[in-house]
Amino acid sequence: MNIQAQLDKLGIELPPAPPLGGVYKPVVIIDRMLYVSGQGPLRNDGTLITGKLGVDLTTPEGYQAARQVGLTMLATIRSQIGDLGKVKRLIKTLGMVNSAPDFYEHPKVINGYSDLFSELLGEENGIGARSAVGMILPGNIAVEIEAIFELH
Amino acid sequence: MNIQAQLDKLGIELPPAPPLGGVYKPVVIIDRMLYVSGQGPLRNDGTLITGKLGVDLTTPEGYQAARQVGLTMLATIRSQIGDLGKVKRLIKTLGMVNSAPDFYEHPKVINGYSDLFSELLGEENGIGARSAVGMILPGNIAVEIEAIFELH
Amino acid sequence: MNIQAQLDKLGIELPPAPPLGGVYKPVVIIDRMLYVSGQGPLRNDGTLITGKLGVDLTTPEGYQAARQVGLTMLATIRSQIGDLGKVKRLIKTLGMVNSAPDFYEHPKVINGYSDLFSELLGEENGIGARSAVGMILPGNIAVEIEAIFELH
Repeated sequence: MNIQAQLDKLGIELPPAPPLGGVYKPVVIIDRMLYVSGQGPLRNDGTLITGKLGVDLTTPEGYQAARQVGLTMLATIRSQIGDLGKVKRLIKTLGMVNSAPDFYEHPKVINGYSDLFSELLGEENGIGARSAVGMILPGNIAVEIEAIFELH
Repeated sequence: MNIQAQLDKLGIELPPAPPLGGVYKPVVIIDRMLYVSGQGPLRNDGTLITGKLGVDLTTPEGYQAARQVGLTMLATIRSQIGDLGKVKRLIKTLGMVNSAPDFYEHPKVINGYSDLFSELLGEENGIGARSAVGMILPGNIAVEIEAIFELH
Repeated sequence: MNIQAQLDKLGIELPPAPPLGGVYKPVVIIDRMLYVSGQGPLRNDGTLITGKLGVDLTTPEGYQAARQVGLTMLATIRSQIGDLGKVKRLIKTLGMVNSAPDFYEHPKVINGYSDLFSELLGEENGIGARSAVGMILPGNIAVEIEAIFELH
């Protein structure tokens, strides 16, 4: 499966590639490994989804935010490597949820990201190793995700 | 040293391999690198060790929980790759401790995991690079650990 | 650019390599990848910079702490591989900030580390992929950073 072809087929539009939020590269490639910097949930209008899970946002809202992080990540990758067809497989995801101290449904939130990549790359290549945990996130964004992909 | 042989020699029984807790693969292999998803502390009876360090659990209890995460991880790896003898070396561990805001002994907790792998693979191959830090963990589990191993 | 030559040119002195704080190796090498364990901000007198951002420390103080983590990491690497000239490129950084629940400027803090490596290795090789997020850190240290480098 080819991510760009799937996006076209499903009529999914990507948000803009986010501006740099500090001193880092959006992606780094070594051999055929693509390391992607932590991405936030950018809406298509360029604003970020903010708030803490368990206080400001429900788990279903967090799921949607995590899906939006996936779309933002794709916009970042496309802006950096040009063609999303080069992405072969999701290796590993660190899913970071902006959590109240008593919020415990991080996996259900990060599933929003994981389901997206399963739809776009298939179960074999689109589902990778993962941790889904709670932190305090920059700019009070709802979800931040970093990942490693294998390129063709 | 061979992990399975060491487990047999020391009479250590593994817990059951944990059920999937979301949309991820328990492990992903690329070349000879084994990426393991975040694992929790599953007891041999299939229940999870829960609670926050510094509130519900003491540091020695956290140490035991981290050791149990190591055993759970081995159960996961064995269920996925079949033979623990294929595991050559621990490369890197991210040790995540469910922490009260004023709990600061994360390394002493994660040592429970690290000591286990040192016993099973020896100091040269069983001790890897590591971070041990505090977060908010899914299901209020005491410890979650993700790791990268080298395979033979 | 060569890190050791740049350190000499800029007159930057490294702190001592930190003592082990648990059961881990300071660095692990596989192929030409160097995995560095989480490092804290060791001052040149051997004491650690402690405190939570948003409560005990300001963002500029956090920036300086993150820069000091970078120097500590270089001391660690030099003590383990001998020659900093072997370090070719920064691949990936996980920047962990000891945060109050309402502190949101993690990227500005971790920039202290990232600016240092940009100065020492240049923008092309010294700036990598990155996440900058908030956690609860061991010993109440202000910042902890783990990283992956490519070696020559």
